Amino acid sequence: MSAISRFPVPALDTLPEDIRNRVAAVHEKAGFVPNVFLALAHRPDEFRAFFAYHDALMEKPGGLTKAEREMIVVATSSANHCHYCVIAHGAVLRIRAKDPLIADQVATNYLNANLTPRQRAMLDFAIAVAMRSHEVNAGDFEALKAHGLTDEDLWDVGAIAALFALSNRMANLMDLKPNEEFYTMGRSGR
Amino acid sequence: MSAISRFPVPALDTLPEDIRNRVAAVHEKAGFVPNVFLALAHRPDEFRAFFAYHDALMEKPGGLTKAEREMIVVATSSANHCHYCVIAHGAVLRIRAKDPLIADQVATNYLNANLTPRQRAMLDFAIAVAMRSHEVNAGDFEALKAHGLTDEDLWDVGAIAALFALSNRMANLMDLKPNEEFYTMGRSGR
Amino acid sequence: MSAISRFPVPALDTLPEDIRNRVAAVHEKAGFVPNVFLALAHRPDEFRAFFAYHDALMEKPGGLTKAEREMIVVATSSANHCHYCVIAHGAVLRIRAKDPLIADQVATNYLNANLTPRQRAMLDFAIAVAMRSHEVNAGDFEALKAHGLTDEDLWDVGAIAALFALSNRMANLMDLKPNEEFYTMGRSGR
Amino acid sequence: MSAISRFPVPALDTLPEDIRNRVAAVHEKAGFVPNVFLALAHRPDEFRAFFAYHDALMEKPGGLTKAEREMIVVATSSANHCHYCVIAHGAVLRIRAKDPLIADQVATNYLNANLTPRQRAMLDFAIAVAMRSHEVNAGDFEALKAHGLTDEDLWDVGAIAALFALSNRMANLMDLKPNEEFYTMGRSGR
Amino acid sequence: MSAISRFPVPALDTLPEDIRNRVAAVHEKAGFVPNVFLALAHRPDEFRAFFAYHDALMEKPGGLTKAEREMIVVATSSANHCHYCVIAHGAVLRIRAKDPLIADQVATNYLNANLTPRQRAMLDFAIAVAMRSHEVNAGDFEALKAHGLTDEDLWDVGAIAALFALSNRMANLMDLKPNEEFYTMGRSGR
Amino acid sequence: MSAISRFPVPALDTLPEDIRNRVAAVHEKAGFVPNVFLALAHRPDEFRAFFAYHDALMEKPGGLTKAEREMIVVATSSANHCHYCVIAHGAVLRIRAKDPLIADQVATNYLNANLTPRQRAMLDFAIAVAMRSHEVNAGDFEALKAHGLTDEDLWDVGAIAALFALSNRMANLMDLKPNEEFYTMGRSGR
Repeated sequence: MSAISRFPVPALDTLPEDIRNRVAAVHEKAGFVPNVFLALAHRPDEFRAFFAYHDALMEKPGGLTKAEREMIVVATSSANHCHYCVIAHGAVLRIRAKDPLIADQVATNYLNANLTPRQRAMLDFAIAVAMRSHEVNAGDFEALKAHGLTDEDLWDVGAIAALFALSNRMANLMDLKPNEEFYTMGRSGR
Repeated sequence: MSAISRFPVPALDTLPEDIRNRVAAVHEKAGFVPNVFLALAHRPDEFRAFFAYHDALMEKPGGLTKAEREMIVVATSSANHCHYCVIAHGAVLRIRAKDPLIADQVATNYLNANLTPRQRAMLDFAIAVAMRSHEVNAGDFEALKAHGLTDEDLWDVGAIAALFALSNRMANLMDLKPNEEFYTMGRSGR
Repeated sequence: MSAISRFPVPALDTLPEDIRNRVAAVHEKAGFVPNVFLALAHRPDEFRAFFAYHDALMEKPGGLTKAEREMIVVATSSANHCHYCVIAHGAVLRIRAKDPLIADQVATNYLNANLTPRQRAMLDFAIAVAMRSHEVNAGDFEALKAHGLTDEDLWDVGAIAALFALSNRMANLMDLKPNEEFYTMGRSGR
Repeated sequence: MSAISRFPVPALDTLPEDIRNRVAAVHEKAGFVPNVFLALAHRPDEFRAFFAYHDALMEKPGGLTKAEREMIVVATSSANHCHYCVIAHGAVLRIRAKDPLIADQVATNYLNANLTPRQRAMLDFAIAVAMRSHEVNAGDFEALKAHGLTDEDLWDVGAIAALFALSNRMANLMDLKPNEEFYTMGRSGR
Repeated sequence: MSAISRFPVPALDTLPEDIRNRVAAVHEKAGFVPNVFLALAHRPDEFRAFFAYHDALMEKPGGLTKAEREMIVVATSSANHCHYCVIAHGAVLRIRAKDPLIADQVATNYLNANLTPRQRAMLDFAIAVAMRSHEVNAGDFEALKAHGLTDEDLWDVGAIAALFALSNRMANLMDLKPNEEFYTMGRSGR
Repeated sequence: MSAISRFPVPALDTLPEDIRNRVAAVHEKAGFVPNVFLALAHRPDEFRAFFAYHDALMEKPGGLTKAEREMIVVATSSANHCHYCVIAHGAVLRIRAKDPLIADQVATNYLNANLTPRQRAMLDFAIAVAMRSHEVNAGDFEALKAHGLTDEDLWDVGAIAALFALSNRMANLMDLKPNEEFYTMGRSGR
């Protein structure tokens, strides 16, 4: 039991080299190690699979901007009441969107956030996948295509919502605490 | 658009070699290729991440029997109304548990299925993670430890529920259809 | 307390003659006595009223095929998580529809089952009656009439959903267990 | 389409004799013909089955007083937002309980109605059967037995909730309107 | 603890003069003192603010008739299961609408009450504000304007729903009991 | 229609003097005018009643600290997805609690926020009043008294939840936008 998770958190120097390298890389980029890297490292194989999935959806090229991907994460993580994901990805959203206000708006009620019609439709679809995926139907696909999204974009929206369905549940299972840095990142200027 | 998914399904011989090998291996073992392998192969990197995560939880040693892991999959997939996962993993559960009746019971209402108290408690926890993970608390952990589960077992229960939260949403997004074989596998004898 | 119900189950030879005859008839037709006949016989007057209601809706001529009536039973019984009704009427549905797959599809998520638009609309209406009957309105009636159903057909759809609202609650109250035969009936060939 | 139902309402003199007699009997007793008798007579076989079921539960001897049975009807009908049943059985409850206030209390929020602990426990059980019967378990049975109810009484409570699950859905399907007389019956004196 | 509230209820002659005057005025007008006046007087400042808010919405001129305002109160109070408000404002609604039946209809299921299309649309909007105000959007405003309501009327509908969101919660917090007089007021004639 | 509300927002110099004074006072204290003051001033009588109610609960002496009162506001406003109230009172909570992290924690999931057991119990009670007040019962009162709260404190907790049930609905009705200042207030140091 540690301060950041209900489960044991390994010491960095006990980790397999590939995981240690990944942690070092994020440390260098962000200036600190986000707690999810340490907490998930308790299970190296799950750590590797999770970040491989994450990179396949969040880092690849595609029709969605990086800010739009983070919006999907924040909206669905808020629907799942995931403390870690809302705070950490809220910070990333502020930075990616260059907008210090957007994350709190999307987290509280994306229905009255300052969004374009395309973004609003994307979040409607993402929330449908997150909360009642068995009702997703051809009509939902058509609604988003009317905003210029392709089938591949729709896979991306749905798959990001699906990946964070997993991520939110793991973070809540671990009672994962966000680093203090995330609360204030990206809040100044615009 | 194909018969088994809303999205394109690649021809086997167009797939990267590692994926082709994985498909060949499951084909040899099961006697057919479960549709999820073909449908997810539309996105090779996501395919690799998904099955790496799957194997890390479903194939590794641990305190849960393989039948118990499949029970968790069937109960949570039913709560998410995931046609593919309930039918396909229902088949695996029948085989792993050597019980032709258990899968339909767990899918319809695990609360009156023929389960041990330990199994019932595991499914209560799995459903909590699947449906309201933000309410999971120390009391839930204690309840399961009273049945002899360890913290590592609890991670497994919760992580399987979390992985299929992803899997159910992807299958529903794709409108994935199960192979006919799954409907009848494991229904004879006990 | 017996193996099939939370309440006492009478011995066949202690039953009133009309009920004994009804049980003998179903035994001859099905090759076994479905447990609901034995469990409800604990209350002969309720047994008679239930099966009179059942026959008035399920056995009479009318605009709905017998397979369509069973679909309504399976879809609404699944929404009510009624173990007995999903398993027993799932078997009857497979036989009436001459389709070994349809029952599991309708039970898991009728929204992606292999249905005609008319069948899909009928199940939408049946689920509305089952789960939020106070919201049923003229618009719902019009939607079904556009599929060629008459007012009398709509009564049938709604009344079957209503009768199994009763039946599902009685089965869950009794913790009624389905006969093993039902799990596999109608699963071969098509 | 008539003023009292979405479906045709037969003229009294066109009805089968047994139904006409039943209608005449209730007319004589109540001073008017409750609309449910006319509306259900559109389907004579269903009329007969419904009232046979009704009498088997509401008119027979047993451990529950007639006022308690009506409380169950009013509480569960209110949970189902059944206009006809709340108004008509509210009237009967006022008369049976000799209490002009109890029906409106039970209909609005039985949790703060003026009830004995036994009555409150009975309504908790009835609401459980009405709204989430698949979760009813041995603990619920024990809770009521602590108030002196027998297994047979529990069948009665659950079966009344189940019968009105049917009745509420039929009344909502028909958009059945209560007779004006019901609104004021039993409101004076106590 | 008193018979009408979970909290202390002050004696009339201990109240500040303005509150005593207000109580005397309602006593003279109604012929009795509605219990909410006594129970809220436990906190004089809150009493004053509540009735100031009440009068600003319920007594002022405006596009809604007084009967329409009471309909909004009864429909939203019923959705919140507020015993006091449904009974007390049901009485006022009967009187204001000169209709002895309307209050019970609106309380049980406004969707099949005897309403004009304008009234039905107003209650749809009021219930939206009461139960899921974060989803209220421009489309809801347009729907009501099509019935002739102005923006100011819409503020009134929403604000009455909002005020009784407060009032219902206070009454439920206090377990406030309605005066017996309310149950029968306005039930005769029409 | 203005940038901050769906309804007209009056110019400051057109307001009645008492309201202008109140606005001037908050302007001097906060350094800016919170938008709720301008938007509610569209209806001066409702403005006066709202702030009178607000002051009666939020500014008076009592057993709850001012930080605890703001916690109740943030937790219940988040449950109601009220953009304005979560952002504005989140800022006040950070300042009153001298804790830059607490508001985001309480808004996302108070169940894993960094709270004392007393604060956690208070929020459980506040959420019960906010979301299902008709179920609040003597057991809930006892649970909080075990943490040292008095009946008067419980009135305060419940009444604050009730007042913001109103406030959240008004803000959502108006689509009220928070001032940018609120997003960052109180985020530095601790």
